[in-house]
Amino acid sequence: MGRYLTLAACQMGPIPKHASRRETVERLVCMLENAAKAGAELVVFPEMGLTTFFPRWLIEDDLEIESYFESSFPSSDTEPLFAAARKLRLGFALSYCERADEGNEKRRFNTMSLVSAEGEIIGRYRKIHVPGTETVEPGFTPHLERRYFLPGDLGFPVFSYRGIGIGLAICNDRRWPETYRMLALNGADIVLLGYNTPFFLEEAPEMAHLRMFHNHLPMQAGAYQNALWVAAAAKAGVEEGQFLIGGSCIIAPSGEMAALAQSLGDEMIVHRADLDFVQLCRKANFDFDRYRRPDQYRSIGERRAALARPI
Amino acid sequence: MGRYLTLAACQMGPIPKHASRRETVERLVCMLENAAKAGAELVVFPEMGLTTFFPRWLIEDDLEIESYFESSFPSSDTEPLFAAARKLRLGFALSYCERADEGNEKRRFNTMSLVSAEGEIIGRYRKIHVPGTETVEPGFTPHLERRYFLPGDLGFPVFSYRGIGIGLAICNDRRWPETYRMLALNGADIVLLGYNTPFFLEEAPEMAHLRMFHNHLPMQAGAYQNALWVAAAAKAGVEEGQFLIGGSCIIAPSGEMAALAQSLGDEMIVHRADLDFVQLCRKANFDFDRYRRPDQYRSIGERRAALARPI
Repeated sequence: MGRYLTLAACQMGPIPKHASRRETVERLVCMLENAAKAGAELVVFPEMGLTTFFPRWLIEDDLEIESYFESSFPSSDTEPLFAAARKLRLGFALSYCERADEGNEKRRFNTMSLVSAEGEIIGRYRKIHVPGTETVEPGFTPHLERRYFLPGDLGFPVFSYRGIGIGLAICNDRRWPETYRMLALNGADIVLLGYNTPFFLEEAPEMAHLRMFHNHLPMQAGAYQNALWVAAAAKAGVEEGQFLIGGSCIIAPSGEMAALAQSLGDEMIVHRADLDFVQLCRKANFDFDRYRRPDQYRSIGERRAALARPI
Repeated sequence: MGRYLTLAACQMGPIPKHASRRETVERLVCMLENAAKAGAELVVFPEMGLTTFFPRWLIEDDLEIESYFESSFPSSDTEPLFAAARKLRLGFALSYCERADEGNEKRRFNTMSLVSAEGEIIGRYRKIHVPGTETVEPGFTPHLERRYFLPGDLGFPVFSYRGIGIGLAICNDRRWPETYRMLALNGADIVLLGYNTPFFLEEAPEMAHLRMFHNHLPMQAGAYQNALWVAAAAKAGVEEGQFLIGGSCIIAPSGEMAALAQSLGDEMIVHRADLDFVQLCRKANFDFDRYRRPDQYRSIGERRAALARPI
């Protein structure tokens, strides 16, 4: 008998600015119920699954910024999600904007929490690769994540869910090979990922046709090169005038697409992930202990940018 | 006016065991001449471009093993290649089995050298990720590279060719994301790669249909994630009874296939690589200096294997 875990990625259509937390949570609970009916044992939701993707705007009013953040998770608004997890015996990973003050310092993170089938917080991850800029920059599509969020400070933790190593990652994290490698080194067999990705970038109109390719390529390579499952959920469709790509997917440790969303709206994809396949791929393709050469990779953890090019 | 360098990847059909070095060098010179006619400015040949891929055999006779190695490069046998480079004003990268003795120690490496358009050695790289095993292992297709070669000890050097940063990589190196990342951090804009990849692996018959996908996926991801050009040349077709995949390719910094071989024999593919596109991709997708977080990646350069999985 092999080991399996049935994964569901719940893609979401747009969350409008005016949607109340309560409305959005109802929508998430409904998706959890559908996932349970489909036999899912673990669910992942998109990045900023409780709010619209507000970093597309320059917001000066601190109270308005605050309105997108959770100062506790669960709160009275989000508690119904935890109740649903308990009732359905179904764990989930949800991203949200986290306010975590320390003393007088207002600390804000782009965070994903993993919740058990008993409705308990297992652990949380804070986005390491915060993209965008601090201010609006000419020639770039406004994307002010670096204005509103601190870079994650919890490393790349891996959590146990039914004895299986689960890593979490958020949006831009998926483009960096270090994300998957760090999670694999920390014991992940499955990576859960949420994202919001605009179709059009002012800074690279030449590559508009490559947006979906650039979405899937690093996730497929990350799955293959680390022999792990990746389940990724997008926010998709036109949200507050901005077109977000979909392409939510579940990727096998072979790098193959095992399931792929077909719409730009609320859509659930499900796959029964074979954990023995992880071991087979590791043995056949990537025996880290035998073949990796960490002494040769030092600069990856020491140097941020490339050396000036040789003359 | 943009900066360009016209790259050629010269795929080779099989090199039989009985082929003399002189015969094989003639074949390489002929390919260099064709590349020059096609406007190439830098050429890459496959891994073990001077011999058959002998690590498929368990060889006990040291003299026979010796026959596959070069104790100098150039030698009288390989000098015609250097003469051709000078005559054609065309640089190339060639892989071969290097014997580099030190004192009484017989040191053997799987090596690639970069040669200038003046026919001078610019530099050399020794394969970091030596795959296979030291002895024949039941359940694995015999692949004894680790019996015959030491792991490379020169790091991931980047060389200047007409002022452009060139990194070298050999076969199995292409599957590891650290290869491209190290080369990019060391200043590479172009990675030249040679490989010999058998179609069938006894250890993973379930993944036979994925061999070409697994060939291209990590190279495309490596190109995209590091915004550099990759030119890769295969040895292809049935060599000494073993079927080698082809799929030689030139990949853009967008991860797109710019050129792809269509045969399993001697075949040249050419592409005029736009170096300004490298800069555009770096700016739009991967500004290392702004977004990388080396302090979060330490384990990549410190730990070989994954932690035991959480319970």
